[in-house]
Amino acid sequence: MKFSIITLFPEMFDKVLSSSMMWKAQEKGLAEFELIDLREFGIGPRRQVDDSPYGGGDGMLMRVEPIFAAVEFARSKSPHAKVLLMTPKGIQWKQNVVKRFADAEDDFIIICPHYEGYDERILALVDEQISMGQFILTGGELPAMMVVDSIVRLIPGVLGGETSAEIESFSDGDNLEYPQYTRPEEFRGVKVPAVLLSGDHGEVARWRDENSSRVG
Amino acid sequence: MKFSIITLFPEMFDKVLSSSMMWKAQEKGLAEFELIDLREFGIGPRRQVDDSPYGGGDGMLMRVEPIFAAVEFARSKSPHAKVLLMTPKGIQWKQNVVKRFADAEDDFIIICPHYEGYDERILALVDEQISMGQFILTGGELPAMMVVDSIVRLIPGVLGGETSAEIESFSDGDNLEYPQYTRPEEFRGVKVPAVLLSGDHGEVARWRDENSSRVG
Repeated sequence: MKFSIITLFPEMFDKVLSSSMMWKAQEKGLAEFELIDLREFGIGPRRQVDDSPYGGGDGMLMRVEPIFAAVEFARSKSPHAKVLLMTPKGIQWKQNVVKRFADAEDDFIIICPHYEGYDERILALVDEQISMGQFILTGGELPAMMVVDSIVRLIPGVLGGETSAEIESFSDGDNLEYPQYTRPEEFRGVKVPAVLLSGDHGEVARWRDENSSRVG
Repeated sequence: MKFSIITLFPEMFDKVLSSSMMWKAQEKGLAEFELIDLREFGIGPRRQVDDSPYGGGDGMLMRVEPIFAAVEFARSKSPHAKVLLMTPKGIQWKQNVVKRFADAEDDFIIICPHYEGYDERILALVDEQISMGQFILTGGELPAMMVVDSIVRLIPGVLGGETSAEIESFSDGDNLEYPQYTRPEEFRGVKVPAVLLSGDHGEVARWRDENSSRVG
């Protein structure tokens, strides 16, 4: 599964894509990442990538030509890739969407716009618009990292089997989480609930069920 | 405004915190970042930070002692800081929450847990639990970056005035966005809507109103 990420700030991804899980995925040949510097597709000697909006308004919009050129460059290497645009207008990123994307085993081209906006004509390129929620960020880079992280960890072989239950429950859209404890048994006077130390699996299961809270 | 970030992967933050907006905020003395390596507060010669759950179950949980020690270290320098925990059990991050946090002008201590979980007793330290949504990530690092990015850009003086309208509308929970266009007037046969080139401000405003879609 290949991720081609189109951004003005490719260096932001360096350490994130070399972090433990991402590194393992690359080592095992399960995921591949390419950072595409949008500036290289800028216009003229100053490699312009944005301009002011027609009809007036504040801020600068990303121009259509560099984004088309960058996506076409990415597509020349991943002809069947799905193109994702990070934007608050998109569908809300959720585990069932993550799972759908991971299962499809597509390659992805991810466009990270600047928060001030983009020329609407880039939408002709886009298969899905993805939102991380109702808040404003400087750009699409952090959301793109989340998309990659959440998909890559579902690629079979990237993580051990330990996460499968967790994944299932979230995918059902109905995740129940219970409080968890590890050593020490007592910390600053606060003890682990005795039932968890009892070794009685039935009692443990009952306690966890009674103390679950729904996430979401 | 100081952000102390407690993480096992401080290097993931390097390039993000030195990106344009964050760098400007630091240069102007408006924001300060400290990465606190949780491993330094690990237990014993191997600096252990996690252990298996009482009562059985897969995965490793973050132990309580290193997190307490790291938060107390951070608090020794930011005594009034608010402690945030990144967790899918938390409140959904939204622009009105961002605004509340930015307006409060607190310092923040942000705990980035590993996705497999943490000892419930760390909640005694936590002022607010923050979620980026119903999906699973490798750890709290990317959500923490989003929290910092979205708050820092609201600190007066970090960005120009160009974003104020955008911020207001999102804060109202009622953001309307309209399609935007910039040069060129025609790209691969697709033209900018003529009204946007008309110079008639009333017509432009009407067109934008009619073509707005609600975000959220």
